[in-house]
Amino acid sequence: MEFKLLRLNLTEWKAREEKIPESLLRKYIGGRGLGAYLALKEIPPGIDPFSPENKIYILTGPVVGTGAFETGRYHVVGKSPLTGILGDANSGGQFGPWLRFAGYDGIVVEGASDEPVWVSIVDGEVQFHLAKHLWGKGVVYTENIIRKEMNTPSEHIGSILSIGPAGENLSKIAAIMNDKYRAAGRTGLAAVLGAKKLKAIFVKGSRKIEIVDKEKFKEESKKIIDKITKHSISEALSKFGTAVLVNIINSHGGLPTKNWTRGTFEKAFEISGEYLAEKYLISNKGCWGCVIRCSRVAKVDSGPYRTPVSEGPEYESIWAMGANTTIGNMEALIKLNYLANDLGFDTISLGNTVAVLMELYEKAKNGSLPEEKAKELEELLGDIEPSWGNADAFAQLVWRMAYRHGIGDYAAEGAKRLAEYFGSPDSAIHVRGLELPAYDPRAINSMALSYATSNRGGCHLRAYAVSFDVLGVPDKFDPLVVDNKKVELVKYQQDYFSVIDSLVICKFNSFATDHTDYVGVLNAVTGWDMTADELLTAGERIYNLERLFAVREGHGYKDTLPKRLLEEPLPDGPAKGRTAKEALEKYLPYYYEIRGWEDGKPKPETLKRLGLEEFLYIL
Amino acid sequence: MEFKLLRLNLTEWKAREEKIPESLLRKYIGGRGLGAYLALKEIPPGIDPFSPENKIYILTGPVVGTGAFETGRYHVVGKSPLTGILGDANSGGQFGPWLRFAGYDGIVVEGASDEPVWVSIVDGEVQFHLAKHLWGKGVVYTENIIRKEMNTPSEHIGSILSIGPAGENLSKIAAIMNDKYRAAGRTGLAAVLGAKKLKAIFVKGSRKIEIVDKEKFKEESKKIIDKITKHSISEALSKFGTAVLVNIINSHGGLPTKNWTRGTFEKAFEISGEYLAEKYLISNKGCWGCVIRCSRVAKVDSGPYRTPVSEGPEYESIWAMGANTTIGNMEALIKLNYLANDLGFDTISLGNTVAVLMELYEKAKNGSLPEEKAKELEELLGDIEPSWGNADAFAQLVWRMAYRHGIGDYAAEGAKRLAEYFGSPDSAIHVRGLELPAYDPRAINSMALSYATSNRGGCHLRAYAVSFDVLGVPDKFDPLVVDNKKVELVKYQQDYFSVIDSLVICKFNSFATDHTDYVGVLNAVTGWDMTADELLTAGERIYNLERLFAVREGHGYKDTLPKRLLEEPLPDGPAKGRTAKEALEKYLPYYYEIRGWEDGKPKPETLKRLGLEEFLYIL
Repeated sequence: MEFKLLRLNLTEWKAREEKIPESLLRKYIGGRGLGAYLALKEIPPGIDPFSPENKIYILTGPVVGTGAFETGRYHVVGKSPLTGILGDANSGGQFGPWLRFAGYDGIVVEGASDEPVWVSIVDGEVQFHLAKHLWGKGVVYTENIIRKEMNTPSEHIGSILSIGPAGENLSKIAAIMNDKYRAAGRTGLAAVLGAKKLKAIFVKGSRKIEIVDKEKFKEESKKIIDKITKHSISEALSKFGTAVLVNIINSHGGLPTKNWTRGTFEKAFEISGEYLAEKYLISNKGCWGCVIRCSRVAKVDSGPYRTPVSEGPEYESIWAMGANTTIGNMEALIKLNYLANDLGFDTISLGNTVAVLMELYEKAKNGSLPEEKAKELEELLGDIEPSWGNADAFAQLVWRMAYRHGIGDYAAEGAKRLAEYFGSPDSAIHVRGLELPAYDPRAINSMALSYATSNRGGCHLRAYAVSFDVLGVPDKFDPLVVDNKKVELVKYQQDYFSVIDSLVICKFNSFATDHTDYVGVLNAVTGWDMTADELLTAGERIYNLERLFAVREGHGYKDTLPKRLLEEPLPDGPAKGRTAKEALEKYLPYYYEIRGWEDGKPKPETLKRLGLEEFLYIL
Repeated sequence: MEFKLLRLNLTEWKAREEKIPESLLRKYIGGRGLGAYLALKEIPPGIDPFSPENKIYILTGPVVGTGAFETGRYHVVGKSPLTGILGDANSGGQFGPWLRFAGYDGIVVEGASDEPVWVSIVDGEVQFHLAKHLWGKGVVYTENIIRKEMNTPSEHIGSILSIGPAGENLSKIAAIMNDKYRAAGRTGLAAVLGAKKLKAIFVKGSRKIEIVDKEKFKEESKKIIDKITKHSISEALSKFGTAVLVNIINSHGGLPTKNWTRGTFEKAFEISGEYLAEKYLISNKGCWGCVIRCSRVAKVDSGPYRTPVSEGPEYESIWAMGANTTIGNMEALIKLNYLANDLGFDTISLGNTVAVLMELYEKAKNGSLPEEKAKELEELLGDIEPSWGNADAFAQLVWRMAYRHGIGDYAAEGAKRLAEYFGSPDSAIHVRGLELPAYDPRAINSMALSYATSNRGGCHLRAYAVSFDVLGVPDKFDPLVVDNKKVELVKYQQDYFSVIDSLVICKFNSFATDHTDYVGVLNAVTGWDMTADELLTAGERIYNLERLFAVREGHGYKDTLPKRLLEEPLPDGPAKGRTAKEALEKYLPYYYEIRGWEDGKPKPETLKRLGLEEFLYIL
């Protein structure tokens, strides 16, 4: 199969094409895997993530845009300014398929422009455009203007990826946005585009994606679609969106509340997917080629939280900006979500960071911050009063963060740096600098291992242990019982999800399918003869490769959790009295054993087994 | 006397000194007069106000910093991006005196820097500093950082002038700020500094201001201070600040309400100086060397409008952002005032512009905007709902305006351009592009002439006819009766106020004194032998000179009022049923007669009489 990269040299405003050898694709598939490989080869060790030497890989995978189920995504990879190790993020919407239709399977953004620039790619033709008039502007406005300039008003034709003011102003928690409301949010890669002064990319075209064996493709696709559409989780996602999880996770005592000091939120129902669907939903909406359509088109008609028709908040956004800051008002959350999207923030990191600020503010008031720091905080806050649950203060903060005004300049650095600066490092709940998502590992203990060993830092999408600890997929386990079978599942998911992100497809496949399902589609598209085991091994290879990036950067390979989760027992809910310490300590040795790792690093024989000999020098 | 200018060449980061000949000072005094003369000589006709060829003159006058009463101000002059004609603005605080103490009587900002820069002037020594870390930051933070870098923590020593994000982002209604809360607000000159990338100027030093005849100076100063301190208006200003006017002007039916569609506001008392003093005042505060101390140090402890200790809103700010938008909440106004100062907006223009937006929003909803424009407005508003009296929407808008996000990009252009863009030009209440201040000329008819003939556009500080139409200074007139005696007073004030702004002293002198009082102080300081008549003639000369700038620019010399004030009768209050048409039509011919003008332009013989022969070429 052919896989064409477009290298955009922003320093010189030049573009060139490059073909990826098929042998490389068979090893790393595409998307996340290919990105990790290229990043490790091309990004020099130790560089400042904001230097022109950093690169951003915007990649599709072999099945994107084929019409097989849930193949409407793209993956972004680069050195993260938030974590200092390999960063990556994934997004749906329309951008991935339209990038392929425009003639390229991936884009590598290199160098840095002196002036703000945006790039159009239409049927293989690349143009650089001055973006001075778009710099400082929100994502929604930016897309509207680019669509006018490209004379492409219909949002069903072509697609735009862009950064908001947060990325421009190098906020380390800035999200790359596409299709207005979709985010490749995690690890702050939008700020790298901001440093390169790349505001947006428009893609459109009519290239057909080659499918080698069309008959087999149809047949294999159908098998998958049958499994997925019949699954009860797919149905719940369609009806209530991802926020269907609010009540479920809350009932397990694992909904982190008030900056991870509690596991249940008394207003959970008022910020649930059910409540959202009942009160504010206009319709659901899907990514390209998806029939689940889990996205929420919503609006708030009037009042302080008026929000125009737009894609509404996901579970993670609702949790991070809601329960975690104790904002229990769905209208406020819809508006905050809109603002975060438009200004270009990762909502998970944003909510965690604001929760840290609320905690710092409380500590300053009760005298438990260093006096000088409390004074500086007060001075920087100015007219902002970030008390718990204060949605107005949150809304005001977002602007200060996007444009780095007053306290916003500090908050834009993310939870870890904010907490450290004000002398309260343990207030930031993160792994490797990346703020944790919406599952408390004290209540859902497999997540302790999942978070601690996640290569990009605190993440629920490397291994979604919630699926077996809570949702019963593939089998139901007790989330409070330590069980080495779950370690095997975490490792399996990490490898399988590496495959998913490299193909690049949606993880909502994973409730109904496993790695044996998609290999047929992949072979039909590419003409390969890969076995399911080989595919899963590719996932394991990718997971090891990512780990090598952190090892190379000299940090980030200590697998642990924030002190609060290890030492402070949950005060409420079904997991009352629990910490994540026991589970993590018991899980890690077995995990390293089955991974073939030692002290968080792959052993040489593991690299050899996986065909990663060329990276042995890193160990 | 010696009068030293410092010319800052921002293109080359170079400074040079220049002495102003004494003969020029005798003609134009200093401050506003000298600025107008230099601007007319040095700024090429027809240039874009944002081009490096524009210049900003930051000038003191001969008596500034001498210790004579109310001599703590400075004046700024340049070509205005808002009006396209000569712009100027005046501010108190500490900056004027400290500029002189630092070794210079004025600064001329020339050229444009590639990179953000700030300048320190300490005892004659000038340094240029990179201001990248201050760009995008608020005024309060900027001053705090510069004071740290200059190791000058006490706010009683040295002074800082700066621009906020509004000026950086070329908002045409941006204010030059100093001493955190003081604004040289009108005509958008901060945006010119923004275009030149000059973020701030720090001044400090120990130069003594030369006073030729110290005995005479003491004696003449004492006469003035006695008059002023005994005056009842001085007392009211000290106790209630300028907002003591809210109830007074409202009771005359001249408090423009709901974008100038009414003359009284039902919540006037709740936004009055009396209410502010009772509920939120911490202390009053004066400019350098002033004992009236009309400034209001205030705070709001908690809640949505929390505001830290800061200088509170003036009458104009309270009116423009309050009555004119129908926001009747003092806490909200304190916060909005704080935000406007910190982001660097002229509150008069800001309030008028937001009132226009509220009117546009209402018109869009009731179908009286062009359909396409209504649609565009809705799209640009996003999550903002600028309904009448909506303080939260206002607070959210300020950020969008400062950083030119969404609708803010349009509102940052000021009332006139905003209203024109959305197809409703008559919604903007301005003269020559400058938004009108807080007195409705339909209720206070001398203001009709004052506004229409104001050289910088709609302004109450060229002739403050309110003093005789309402306050009884020098005599009380009926504000609804047309009387040519008032035309003479308007002309007198315009000339006298030109003197005040050129000396550069505070206009609160003018209630208790006239031009005959200050000539003694001026002569004592300079050693001149000027007569009071000569001084007033200098004022007249300056007024004509400013008019010549507008004539040269080919527009701006039509003396009229907005259609709403000429054609729509006030619906309420003591002036119910009145327009400003009759007064303006009757006043203008007599005004031109006593000015020696024709069709808004000085006659050649007038220029000759005033010693302005060198500018005859402009006519």
